[in-house]
Amino acid sequence: MNNLMKTAITPSLISPQLSSQELELDRPLKLGVLASGSGTNFESIVQAINQGKLKAEIPILIYNNPKAKVQERAQRLNVLAKLLNHREFKQREDLDRAIVETFREHQVEWVIMAGWMRIVTPVLLEAYPNHVINIHPSLLPSFKGIRAIEQALASQVKITGCTVHIASLEVDSGPILLQAAVPILADDTPETLHARIQLQEHIIFPQAIALAAKAQRNNLKT
Amino acid sequence: MNNLMKTAITPSLISPQLSSQELELDRPLKLGVLASGSGTNFESIVQAINQGKLKAEIPILIYNNPKAKVQERAQRLNVLAKLLNHREFKQREDLDRAIVETFREHQVEWVIMAGWMRIVTPVLLEAYPNHVINIHPSLLPSFKGIRAIEQALASQVKITGCTVHIASLEVDSGPILLQAAVPILADDTPETLHARIQLQEHIIFPQAIALAAKAQRNNLKT
Repeated sequence: MNNLMKTAITPSLISPQLSSQELELDRPLKLGVLASGSGTNFESIVQAINQGKLKAEIPILIYNNPKAKVQERAQRLNVLAKLLNHREFKQREDLDRAIVETFREHQVEWVIMAGWMRIVTPVLLEAYPNHVINIHPSLLPSFKGIRAIEQALASQVKITGCTVHIASLEVDSGPILLQAAVPILADDTPETLHARIQLQEHIIFPQAIALAAKAQRNNLKT
Repeated sequence: MNNLMKTAITPSLISPQLSSQELELDRPLKLGVLASGSGTNFESIVQAINQGKLKAEIPILIYNNPKAKVQERAQRLNVLAKLLNHREFKQREDLDRAIVETFREHQVEWVIMAGWMRIVTPVLLEAYPNHVINIHPSLLPSFKGIRAIEQALASQVKITGCTVHIASLEVDSGPILLQAAVPILADDTPETLHARIQLQEHIIFPQAIALAAKAQRNNLKT
């Protein structure tokens, strides 16, 4: 079955293509980024900003793990990075309170969860209603929660992908902004599949941020 | 949001591309088709056979609804069609026993559920172990059960599709053979989306049948 499967899927992908006009914003968005890992999605947003694809600035990035590689990345990209070590907070709510306080100091308008491995609480969601954006490495509603890529491989689906959505209290739920589909190849490992999904994440994440901001402003106008 | 979303998805699709060599079978498969509706998937299989894309024959088609349009389609395509009206059977098992009996009379090897709206029982699955193939209009495991297209539209996903899989007792489960991804457009109705999904169903269904048969024969050889 395997080597049949290998050729059974085209390498083509579905990925949203937004015109620069559609992503045009009247003034730069102020993004507060939350990251726990290496920060490749964070860098893709910085690159979109630098390439003029996303009219935004990132006054501050918050990371929760002293060893997170995103710290070095932020330094290299000249983005202010602040450590809020979750281990130093009694409750999730306390961490979120510190996050909100920090973001407000920096006039953050949109909270971008770029690989944020902490569960958000009402403290953050109520401080930024419908302004917290999350990315998940599956075609939601399939494969919510951790190890989504391993879940997809185990279930033997032939197509998976990634989803950018407005965060809600229920993990990996909330209104979907954009999705991209990624074929699973017969010889995929979690690593090879993750790499192909990440390529799509880096395309749709900045687009979804602009889309959310533009949609929200259009709603305000009407 | 809507007209943004409209352009947010490319019209491109993921659909498996199998080479004729990969689909080549040493002898024709004998397919028994089960259909409840208009039979467009049934016709796509007949066309694949007539075009030499699928080495198979359909000795018999069974439909369960006297008014099903598939009857006329079978007549036009010169495929023997037999009505087994589920209303005339006390239990699901009784219907499945009649199906198995009919298929065995015609030396059917593979059971193809081409829009079969009856729940299959162990009677059929045990008579044709791992040889019952179903198609479902979603990217399983999302949106199992009835009205899958309406489910997808209601959930506001941006990408859905179709799945061909080996049938199991659990509805819309069982090993996946092939999938195709279909973008949801901002102005899609259940009808317009269904039409685009069907185009993909007609591509992957005949391919999945050949794939299953070939994989099964390879397993026998090894």
